[in-house]
Amino acid sequence: MNAPSVSFRRASAAGVKGLIADCLAAAGAPRPDAEAVAGLMTEADLTGADAHGVFRLPQYVRRLRAGGFNRTPSIAVERTAPATARVDGDNGIGHLVVKRAAETAIEIARETGVAWVGVRGSNHAGSAGLYAEMAAAHGMIGIYSAVASANHMAVWGGNELLLGTNPLAIAVPTGTGPMVLDMATTVVSYGTIKKHVLQGLPMPEGWLIDRDTGEPITDPAKAGRGILLPIGGYKGSGLSLMLGVLAGILNGAAFGRDCVDFNADDTSVTDTGQLVIAVDVARFVGLDRFTAEVDRHMAALRGSARMAGVDAIRLPGDRRRECRAERAASGIPLPAALVAQLDTVATELGVKTLGER
Amino acid sequence: MNAPSVSFRRASAAGVKGLIADCLAAAGAPRPDAEAVAGLMTEADLTGADAHGVFRLPQYVRRLRAGGFNRTPSIAVERTAPATARVDGDNGIGHLVVKRAAETAIEIARETGVAWVGVRGSNHAGSAGLYAEMAAAHGMIGIYSAVASANHMAVWGGNELLLGTNPLAIAVPTGTGPMVLDMATTVVSYGTIKKHVLQGLPMPEGWLIDRDTGEPITDPAKAGRGILLPIGGYKGSGLSLMLGVLAGILNGAAFGRDCVDFNADDTSVTDTGQLVIAVDVARFVGLDRFTAEVDRHMAALRGSARMAGVDAIRLPGDRRRECRAERAASGIPLPAALVAQLDTVATELGVKTLGER
Repeated sequence: MNAPSVSFRRASAAGVKGLIADCLAAAGAPRPDAEAVAGLMTEADLTGADAHGVFRLPQYVRRLRAGGFNRTPSIAVERTAPATARVDGDNGIGHLVVKRAAETAIEIARETGVAWVGVRGSNHAGSAGLYAEMAAAHGMIGIYSAVASANHMAVWGGNELLLGTNPLAIAVPTGTGPMVLDMATTVVSYGTIKKHVLQGLPMPEGWLIDRDTGEPITDPAKAGRGILLPIGGYKGSGLSLMLGVLAGILNGAAFGRDCVDFNADDTSVTDTGQLVIAVDVARFVGLDRFTAEVDRHMAALRGSARMAGVDAIRLPGDRRRECRAERAASGIPLPAALVAQLDTVATELGVKTLGER
Repeated sequence: MNAPSVSFRRASAAGVKGLIADCLAAAGAPRPDAEAVAGLMTEADLTGADAHGVFRLPQYVRRLRAGGFNRTPSIAVERTAPATARVDGDNGIGHLVVKRAAETAIEIARETGVAWVGVRGSNHAGSAGLYAEMAAAHGMIGIYSAVASANHMAVWGGNELLLGTNPLAIAVPTGTGPMVLDMATTVVSYGTIKKHVLQGLPMPEGWLIDRDTGEPITDPAKAGRGILLPIGGYKGSGLSLMLGVLAGILNGAAFGRDCVDFNADDTSVTDTGQLVIAVDVARFVGLDRFTAEVDRHMAALRGSARMAGVDAIRLPGDRRRECRAERAASGIPLPAALVAQLDTVATELGVKTLGER
């Protein structure tokens, strides 16, 4: 099977952000909330997390209009101990809730050295790396995890969709800005699968297996029958499970069989759980010493001998940094099929389309 | 190639523990320290972490006698913020240092909800799961990571041994005791490779690649030419790197090119870094509610439909629990080659051999 050719159109970050904000506001979100979510979604697009950017707008708009999101949430922060807090998102858009959790973690960690902030009553919050990165911008280490907003994985040995791709993001400050690891506990995220489905691109073996036969699925049209494979087999399954316990069960949020498939259901409350940890580097080694040492060691890794055929050694966050620079300058590439969807949404909501911005 | 048959001998946990304690004490460790290390090493053997149990005794004895360990360390705990501490191990045996760090984390977390305790000046501490489990026994979530005591992995794309198998362990309380995830960021740990080398067992493809050719290594005799493969390719490489930053660089401990190969060098100071996090469950949801919910969800996962050919769904820690029960009752199986090594060590130190216990 050959991949069909996919045509792209470049849109400016400002245009994308404006479209998202206007659509969310037209669908009922207060303007400041719409702007905040639009900023984070556009940042996801800029940094190459395509499955968490404007790609999600039609779904978010549907959910806002259907009442699946609380359009005007009262996000509540409860300090449960000197170094811990729990945020109740009141069923708001996840970006708003987790942003608040990350800000809370940074504030507490400044005082206590480390903060662990759990979230319940939240929703899909998009790109994991963005929330870890917030702490790194304050000279802290940031860690983020979440119960994914749909179960696309089975526990190792099982074939029921009871676990999510539960992501882990870790960000640390360096001399040249945050270094960010942002990984799903599956070989690829479901967003990557959705992107392949949208673009009709075949998938390599090792991403998805058929839930009945266990055979690899490479045809994007059959993705709906698939189970995502965890990294490292039982290890990735165990890691996803444990992150789900920490981000979900510990916060009294949904896990496993109680998770709502956010992609298939626009109205049920998801009670999504998330987790943000912030650690103040200055409480361990001086920030200057830390960033100098990170820079020294990362330079040694980059400059180390390479396997045959490898042109450059890439470290966590390299791709997102390069992608951000390129897209900020040249625009965000959007598949034609997505642009058509976005035009429909904009027209329905009576806001300017991307082409009119 | 067929695996050569390996003969095993069963030794009681009390016998193994006594041998370790007597040998460490005879090699210069104070008796209480020798007993504490022996307890943790025997627990590693009981729970199936064979590469971190009595298997390590000859190496530890060599290092104690060669002066590579400080036999009488002054382990110092500095509270660096309300919820953080740094432990300086004064080059003591890692088990003593990390045990102190875990106890400190539990004590602080009781007060502040979460504690992050960094370690420097430490050494190889054996089984990661044991330190995470300590917090779980106190109704807390425990997380442990470390810079591995030798670099057996390259950064993704590289072929120099600059990264370790840097483990991650997460333990949570359940209604039936701690549930423990204990994983290396490589497909297998180097301890597993050593076990195969010791027993002459062939290795499956996917564990090790030749550092020059990139070809899989399956012959244990060629393991010395190998690079361990990370889980999930670049993801596991990135995770190992980040855990190394958190457990090493953040504590002012060794990382990357500065790491001493603890297996090949009995005298150089390793300056090993480790990390323990404890989180008090009661600060989020009640402990009873938490364990009940974990139990409910784990039962759902265990009872879920299975892939063809799978006889039972196993969750993190199942193997260690079953192994512990079996070995506590029937003894710890030790390969004959290891028993011979241990006999030599015991005889040299003038203590009773395993057979005499």
